[in-house]
Amino acid sequence: MAPGSRLSAPPALKPGTCRIVPLGGLGEVGRNMTVFELDGKILIVDCGVLFPEEHQPGVDLILPDFSYIEDRLDDVVGVVLTHGHEDHIGAVPYLLRLKADIPLIGSTLTLALIEAKLEEHRISPLTLTVTEGDTEHLGPFECEFVAVNHSIPDALAVAIKTQAGTVLHTGDFKMDQLPLDGRITDLRAFARLGEDGVDLFLTDSTNAEVPGFTTTEKEIGSVLEGLMARASQRVIVASFASHVHRIQQVLDAAHQHGRKVCFVGRSMVRNMGIAAKLGYLKVPEGILVDLKQVDQLPDDQVVLMCTGSQGEPMAALSRMANGDHRIQLNAGDLVILASSLIPGNETSVFRVVNGLMKLGAEVVHKGMAKVHVSGHASQGELLYCYNIVKPTHVMPVHGETRHLIANGKIAESTGVPRENILLTEDGSVVDLTDGVARVTGQVECGFVYVDGSSIGEITDADLKDRQVLGEEGFISIISVVNRQTGTIVSGPDIHARGVAEDDSVFDEVKLKIARALEEAVQSNADHTTHQLQQVVRRVIGTWVNRKLRRRPMIVPVVLEA
Amino acid sequence: MAPGSRLSAPPALKPGTCRIVPLGGLGEVGRNMTVFELDGKILIVDCGVLFPEEHQPGVDLILPDFSYIEDRLDDVVGVVLTHGHEDHIGAVPYLLRLKADIPLIGSTLTLALIEAKLEEHRISPLTLTVTEGDTEHLGPFECEFVAVNHSIPDALAVAIKTQAGTVLHTGDFKMDQLPLDGRITDLRAFARLGEDGVDLFLTDSTNAEVPGFTTTEKEIGSVLEGLMARASQRVIVASFASHVHRIQQVLDAAHQHGRKVCFVGRSMVRNMGIAAKLGYLKVPEGILVDLKQVDQLPDDQVVLMCTGSQGEPMAALSRMANGDHRIQLNAGDLVILASSLIPGNETSVFRVVNGLMKLGAEVVHKGMAKVHVSGHASQGELLYCYNIVKPTHVMPVHGETRHLIANGKIAESTGVPRENILLTEDGSVVDLTDGVARVTGQVECGFVYVDGSSIGEITDADLKDRQVLGEEGFISIISVVNRQTGTIVSGPDIHARGVAEDDSVFDEVKLKIARALEEAVQSNADHTTHQLQQVVRRVIGTWVNRKLRRRPMIVPVVLEA
Repeated sequence: MAPGSRLSAPPALKPGTCRIVPLGGLGEVGRNMTVFELDGKILIVDCGVLFPEEHQPGVDLILPDFSYIEDRLDDVVGVVLTHGHEDHIGAVPYLLRLKADIPLIGSTLTLALIEAKLEEHRISPLTLTVTEGDTEHLGPFECEFVAVNHSIPDALAVAIKTQAGTVLHTGDFKMDQLPLDGRITDLRAFARLGEDGVDLFLTDSTNAEVPGFTTTEKEIGSVLEGLMARASQRVIVASFASHVHRIQQVLDAAHQHGRKVCFVGRSMVRNMGIAAKLGYLKVPEGILVDLKQVDQLPDDQVVLMCTGSQGEPMAALSRMANGDHRIQLNAGDLVILASSLIPGNETSVFRVVNGLMKLGAEVVHKGMAKVHVSGHASQGELLYCYNIVKPTHVMPVHGETRHLIANGKIAESTGVPRENILLTEDGSVVDLTDGVARVTGQVECGFVYVDGSSIGEITDADLKDRQVLGEEGFISIISVVNRQTGTIVSGPDIHARGVAEDDSVFDEVKLKIARALEEAVQSNADHTTHQLQQVVRRVIGTWVNRKLRRRPMIVPVVLEA
Repeated sequence: MAPGSRLSAPPALKPGTCRIVPLGGLGEVGRNMTVFELDGKILIVDCGVLFPEEHQPGVDLILPDFSYIEDRLDDVVGVVLTHGHEDHIGAVPYLLRLKADIPLIGSTLTLALIEAKLEEHRISPLTLTVTEGDTEHLGPFECEFVAVNHSIPDALAVAIKTQAGTVLHTGDFKMDQLPLDGRITDLRAFARLGEDGVDLFLTDSTNAEVPGFTTTEKEIGSVLEGLMARASQRVIVASFASHVHRIQQVLDAAHQHGRKVCFVGRSMVRNMGIAAKLGYLKVPEGILVDLKQVDQLPDDQVVLMCTGSQGEPMAALSRMANGDHRIQLNAGDLVILASSLIPGNETSVFRVVNGLMKLGAEVVHKGMAKVHVSGHASQGELLYCYNIVKPTHVMPVHGETRHLIANGKIAESTGVPRENILLTEDGSVVDLTDGVARVTGQVECGFVYVDGSSIGEITDADLKDRQVLGEEGFISIISVVNRQTGTIVSGPDIHARGVAEDDSVFDEVKLKIARALEEAVQSNADHTTHQLQQVVRRVIGTWVNRKLRRRPMIVPVVLEA
């Protein structure tokens, strides 16, 4: 079946059937969350956020839609967090605001990162630390945790064994065969699970369109070393603040070339502190310095390791490019974007690159040198995976429609029957009974917007309003009328913003509005305020379209005095 | 010198010195326009538009800033148009609105395209058709036109010979050695001009960051044929409406596989009509059909050649993806994006791709198959160019800062002395005297926004307003006061849009506003309206920030009754 087909509500859940409902991450890259239900109990895998796009202006974050479970939070036996990236853990604080004692299950690093985040929200969670090889019984769900390799250490896949069948969920993963920490994706465990029978395989689709194999992270090390070897001034490296192994390689290269390293940016400082304390990041003795010490060091002994690799305007790198950061860049400094370029961020990233180059800095990004590799399995790796696990059914997860479909095709090419490849979307309901998985319905599953202090109060209609306001501005027309005398006491006053015309342009239409309004008041004393406002709206709307060729938001206000 | 350094106004122009001022295209990809001045006369090369980015909401187009020349339009001897792309000809109608009889000089196809555009603006231009090898004396400028190969036929470079020296301007170009029309970039002419001495070489920087050589357009033909050979239903191809050679290859592949072709989209129909009439597009007998005929044809005999390759929401392809186009796509249809993916458009393009795939269509884009090649010279070609021309000075044009710097480095690697590589930006003033070119100053050169019927009325402050409105919405607070009685006659009435809260949330602050306003009116009868409005702004602004964590635009209105 194709995603996007509209289905009705699912049937009542039968005892012994395991129901799987993705509440986010299928149709978008982000806000990953999957619900598993069995015999009245609920297990959640991941609870992440999605970052807004340009057609969602002013939105801070987008959450999975909790409404499917929010009346049943007492039945939730736990939230398994596969790894510590925002798109997998970022919505946990919002879920725990609804019920603070839902247990969180994850690896040491994953739990340390979410605990730091929850501290900012003043929540102390219940946690259960697990490691690869562990099995935990969470209500009716027997969960076995399997090591997977990703762009953050300590990531886990989870096998969920139930009376209805066995589900294997990869989380985000790739299969670097020479990872920095030697912790490879455990294909022996995948093989064993496969031999026992994986009835439903949920697999990461992010790179399902990418041919071949993802390059090993290790190759970046020598590139970074080469760049530092020839750098004669300061070196500035930007990457995600959670990419421990990337940052490890920056530390190692810096160490080799006698440079000190300064972490710049709040999340970089915080995450690397956690990673170092827990032993995931090996910090060479005496290499770290703070911003004050940087000023004292010769330029060729400095590496600044900072945030802002996606062009985020408030992050360290953007501010350096604009010249409004404490660190002032000079001609000859070398900036390395050791990071991906997330689609949609190109304009912002290249604005930063141009800004840095105008200051005379040299900028190296993945378009010109091997300074980044992806954290996700490419087509070649997915083929290995399907052939080792040999699942009965496949449900591609984590991706836009195009990624899910591409992943389904890879599964099909390894022999999974087409009818057993479940192409689903957020809110799809998949029922697993006696090892057979089928889509049985669809539940409501919208975008939940966080904006300022509000959660879920912004509707798509509000965003539509914002889009009109942002593209066309608004015109507010205020008139005070006296119904008794049939006259206009004050106004019409016109206030326009973003319409970009001199206010005097409206003089011509004021008279028309006044005339129409007086006529309306005099002709019928029973006109409601709304009707009078509609009279104003019609007159100015027509005039603005014809005269200015614009369609701003029109806000007519009629008051009575 | 680095671009971005601030220079003062240039010295008065001396007789015999040729002054070169780029009014657009240096610092952005688009709105290309360069002014040449000598002995009181002005020659313009290109006059294009720039398409707005997301931080310029609601803007239709961005023009070069004409203010440097607009008082001297009588001195303009002509506008040389190097080729027919929008970023080189799109602003001509706006220039000719200021003075309709400025002569336009260009090749047959270029002039036909601009004339069709000017007809929509009801302007009949003065034109001078030139072809490669021609020399024309335009005032003190002797212009020789040289064939160049690009992603539109009939493109020209121009050598401008003056008493101050010779300037060679490539326009947009690449060096496909096997172009479809056999019309290669004329390196013999470049060599001859170089031997005579090119004092200043203006070169296309668009692909200066891309290693190697741009693949020949011809390779796409066999890929298209392969795709059509295996397609069992309709084939939909999207590309730029000006890419005559790409569309030629679609026609040829369709012809070979017994398919009819329907042009879809206004600009596609118009441009291909012009190209066919002038002989640039060779249309196989009887291959073209219109939309009505498409309905009668079996699916495997149809190719739809349409616009919308950049995800433009109103173009044919987006509307097909949304299901609101006359052509309804079915599962199994094949969509080919035979086009570039312009940075910044990724989100829109992939939204369309996901929409098409949800309908069950297969989508092939340049990420998976060789269905697009660039129209610009890569590093390898630029090296050939510099080595053949051996210019004294180089001024990279057409690109963002990063492209211009990359191009300068390529020139330097071929032996052009660093001090002779002029890294400039819009408004830079370059003076060429006795074969020596130097940057001598900077003139004002802003963005000129077209929005609806207005040109240049939108300021950056208006765009800032729109951004605030688009991200945060607005709150308008209207109160009618009576100064004599010191009371509020009506209000405060609060109207909010895009703020996304139930209006009842404001009840709490209305009282605070009323109290503050009454106090202000009673305490001092001399308060101006503006001062009273500021009182309102302060009260609600503080409240909104603290209570809602937002910063909407606040529009306080105080009327008197």
